[in-house]
Amino acid sequence: MNSAEFRKAAHSAIDEIVDYYDTIQDRRVVSNVEPGYLRKLLPSGPPEEGEQWADIQKDIEAKIMPGLTHWQSPNFMAFFPSNATYPSMLGELYSAAFHAPAFNWLCSPAITELETVVLDWLARILYLPDCFLSEGEGGGVIQGSASEAIVTVMVAARERYLTAACENLEGKEKEDKRTQTMGRLVALGSEQSHSGTAKAAIITGVRYRSMPCRLQDDLALTGHQLRAALEQCASEGLEPFYLTTTLGTTATCAIDRFDEIRAVVDSIQSLEKIWIHVDAAYAGAALVCEEYAHLTKDFVAFDSFEMNMHKWLLTNFDAGCLFVRKRKDLTSALSITPSYLQNPFSDKGLVTDYRDWQIPLGRRFRALKIWFVLRTYGINGLKAHIRNHIQLGESFARWVRQREDLFRILTPPAFALTVFTLALPAHTDSWLPNGDTNVKVNEGLVTADYLPETSTDQLERANALTKTVYERINAAGGIFLTSSVVEGVYAIRVVSGSERTDEVHLRKAFDILVKTTKEMFRKR
Amino acid sequence: MNSAEFRKAAHSAIDEIVDYYDTIQDRRVVSNVEPGYLRKLLPSGPPEEGEQWADIQKDIEAKIMPGLTHWQSPNFMAFFPSNATYPSMLGELYSAAFHAPAFNWLCSPAITELETVVLDWLARILYLPDCFLSEGEGGGVIQGSASEAIVTVMVAARERYLTAACENLEGKEKEDKRTQTMGRLVALGSEQSHSGTAKAAIITGVRYRSMPCRLQDDLALTGHQLRAALEQCASEGLEPFYLTTTLGTTATCAIDRFDEIRAVVDSIQSLEKIWIHVDAAYAGAALVCEEYAHLTKDFVAFDSFEMNMHKWLLTNFDAGCLFVRKRKDLTSALSITPSYLQNPFSDKGLVTDYRDWQIPLGRRFRALKIWFVLRTYGINGLKAHIRNHIQLGESFARWVRQREDLFRILTPPAFALTVFTLALPAHTDSWLPNGDTNVKVNEGLVTADYLPETSTDQLERANALTKTVYERINAAGGIFLTSSVVEGVYAIRVVSGSERTDEVHLRKAFDILVKTTKEMFRKR
Repeated sequence: MNSAEFRKAAHSAIDEIVDYYDTIQDRRVVSNVEPGYLRKLLPSGPPEEGEQWADIQKDIEAKIMPGLTHWQSPNFMAFFPSNATYPSMLGELYSAAFHAPAFNWLCSPAITELETVVLDWLARILYLPDCFLSEGEGGGVIQGSASEAIVTVMVAARERYLTAACENLEGKEKEDKRTQTMGRLVALGSEQSHSGTAKAAIITGVRYRSMPCRLQDDLALTGHQLRAALEQCASEGLEPFYLTTTLGTTATCAIDRFDEIRAVVDSIQSLEKIWIHVDAAYAGAALVCEEYAHLTKDFVAFDSFEMNMHKWLLTNFDAGCLFVRKRKDLTSALSITPSYLQNPFSDKGLVTDYRDWQIPLGRRFRALKIWFVLRTYGINGLKAHIRNHIQLGESFARWVRQREDLFRILTPPAFALTVFTLALPAHTDSWLPNGDTNVKVNEGLVTADYLPETSTDQLERANALTKTVYERINAAGGIFLTSSVVEGVYAIRVVSGSERTDEVHLRKAFDILVKTTKEMFRKR
Repeated sequence: MNSAEFRKAAHSAIDEIVDYYDTIQDRRVVSNVEPGYLRKLLPSGPPEEGEQWADIQKDIEAKIMPGLTHWQSPNFMAFFPSNATYPSMLGELYSAAFHAPAFNWLCSPAITELETVVLDWLARILYLPDCFLSEGEGGGVIQGSASEAIVTVMVAARERYLTAACENLEGKEKEDKRTQTMGRLVALGSEQSHSGTAKAAIITGVRYRSMPCRLQDDLALTGHQLRAALEQCASEGLEPFYLTTTLGTTATCAIDRFDEIRAVVDSIQSLEKIWIHVDAAYAGAALVCEEYAHLTKDFVAFDSFEMNMHKWLLTNFDAGCLFVRKRKDLTSALSITPSYLQNPFSDKGLVTDYRDWQIPLGRRFRALKIWFVLRTYGINGLKAHIRNHIQLGESFARWVRQREDLFRILTPPAFALTVFTLALPAHTDSWLPNGDTNVKVNEGLVTADYLPETSTDQLERANALTKTVYERINAAGGIFLTSSVVEGVYAIRVVSGSERTDEVHLRKAFDILVKTTKEMFRKR
């Protein structure tokens, strides 16, 4: 493909993408292809001779499009949003063109330097404490995802802890102490922490233990639960070295009690410090609004903070933004410099080599899209985007509350997310799922906190009803939602975070929920 | 930015990118900005109000471009190539537009299915054994980089080994056995393995040991060295569970002796199998040519294979292609499924959820660019690209050999890479570095294999000369090279892998080398 062919192909691709975005709300939001659909449509191997772009492009609409789930559709209210925006796409385009695998500064200095600058910009507009800025001992780095960031900081936490534990030891004694300590290390999270923490513990070879959260605490991790877990670990001879706290949990957008956690950790006097990470993957975007700035005040006592611009902050995946208080903690753990990576700039310590802040060696020029997004929207544009969704979420929660005959809010709506269940009708005996008697209910503990008057049998029935409504709605494909099982309660999550979602789409979603729920019930 | 604004902005961006590529050879290949140049050019934060694209775009040429090192320049002969091509850029563009964080099949089925299909295509055109195809028990997955792939398979290897070691044990006994075994695990590589293996061992919490390679074996890992390492580990009570072998080492493109390694591993009778990984990050691309197919015959006995299409196979970073013989080894180690990720398709095992084949949760739609590249070039186009560079590399090596008064080839030229040093002139006493008496030589072992007649003093002098020539050439900026220290010998690496490099560029590079080398010497 020469330059003239590329210019023509790319202009055609741009036109197709604009058409796609302009009509996205008319497409079925969640794909309904059968598993294996695509292999049937494609040849068994690549062609011997090259093909023309026009022939390749035709296959996009014909073969790829049916298998896409449209995350940018205003009818997408599942998981968390994963925004893709026009200025961010321009960033991806230039990034592809200017590509260098940027494992060190000299690879392409602008790639490293722009990343440092825009992450400092971001730290400031998120009201993070100054300790996370690159100008001091901290700094930000773009990671692929929140889970990758957790693996990265968990390795740094483990090495910091083991180094402290083995201080003043040498040789065999040191080696034995390291092995013994390694066997006792435990990473902590709450039951509501994202699964990325449990997975990171597997990857880094340590134990993982999760702490219970209670509906009466709005599913937040409290100081009380943390202290209990630390005491339990001590009694078993385990050594907690790392803790994930969460600002906006995946299931319900709960906020851990940072002040209480800080107080507990501060009360521990030990050389071997517990690394505290704040996972704000989704809700961290809301920190651009000053009304949330109070949430960051305790972070000054924590070691790392991560939010994904690629969720709710208008930037294409991947743009995981990890900030650490001491960059030396990362580089001490992860730096390996063979001769082919040595160069005068790195050797003199004049520059940042981000390969030592991450798991992979190479990296893409992801700072460009962040730069384009921050400049295109401006601080006020970002705030307006977040506040609009917060307001939409509040409207939705209000509508749910107004139909207490059908629905029950499970946890406080937050960050545009509403989590609710079907309400059990007053005379449950007279209502049955409409023919779906084989609905399986996910198992879980029944807590006394939810529906204290509810028996196990009633809860199972309610769970079955909620699950059936949820599955019918997704099968119909007008909107796309996700569910969660929270403390044994099966709940539906509705979150509005797509740039194209407005009140009319949420109203439509609500109407679908009401209609499907009503259809579920029939008199015996 | 609305659709009309985006169309205009994107067309303008495309035009700028085409201009960039059409004139790339006229730009200074390696950036010569000073560390910190960019922060001085940028404001201290993002604007309050959004800016227009025209204003943002202006800053690309003015502020970003000076800090870029141009990896697609035909004058780039450093590291390994990292190809970016037009069809691949189109893949990145659509990927950005169709974005879904594709952590499971339902997220956007086409993303998973296209990945499975194109990686099967790739496995076949690389002449990999059938066990790596998804149709059996194996399959391919796109990873961010070769180092990320090594971490991924090392976790799978560790868990497979520990599971076997703890078989039939329960409770405390199992836990103790696991902890003890974990403390004895050692990952193996050769001294020529990429640093990614040592880093993966840090990340996964195990020991790492590298085996020596000898110049007389062309720096390949041999069966003899492997057996010696295994015996040494056994004598120390260590348990090797993982080995990186390499097809095309970073420093010199050496090829490990796969047949000997296979024989050694086959001779070990143990429940706890050593996982053998083949790192073919760069040179794996050459396997598209049937003349290299014999290299893959022993892979049938190995566990995983990785090559990066984003190095030499015309695809934008990232496109690390990892193939495993048993996908169950990956998913058993890495699968965690919380309720918010459950769905009927995954639960029934009908589909592939690539999140369980990798470290991060989310992922980009990277299969698109691979699909576009394979179709645009066709199998014959890919072969022609590789063979052209192989031939260029052979020409370059021939020129180097013809100037034995100036240069000495260090290791057999392979895969378009030539590694050489300056030759010590016959009467070394009469030649001295031209004023660079403070050149520091990297320390390393002097081997008897290289220049057996050379004394330590002579080697240091030769190293200093080679390093000075290397640094002067990079400082001048006409071409960009890298160096390596191999068994104590400082060497220059020249590799031609950019799509735009042809004989005239390599000839220019050679002339620069000759001229700079001659200038280095002066009579006392």
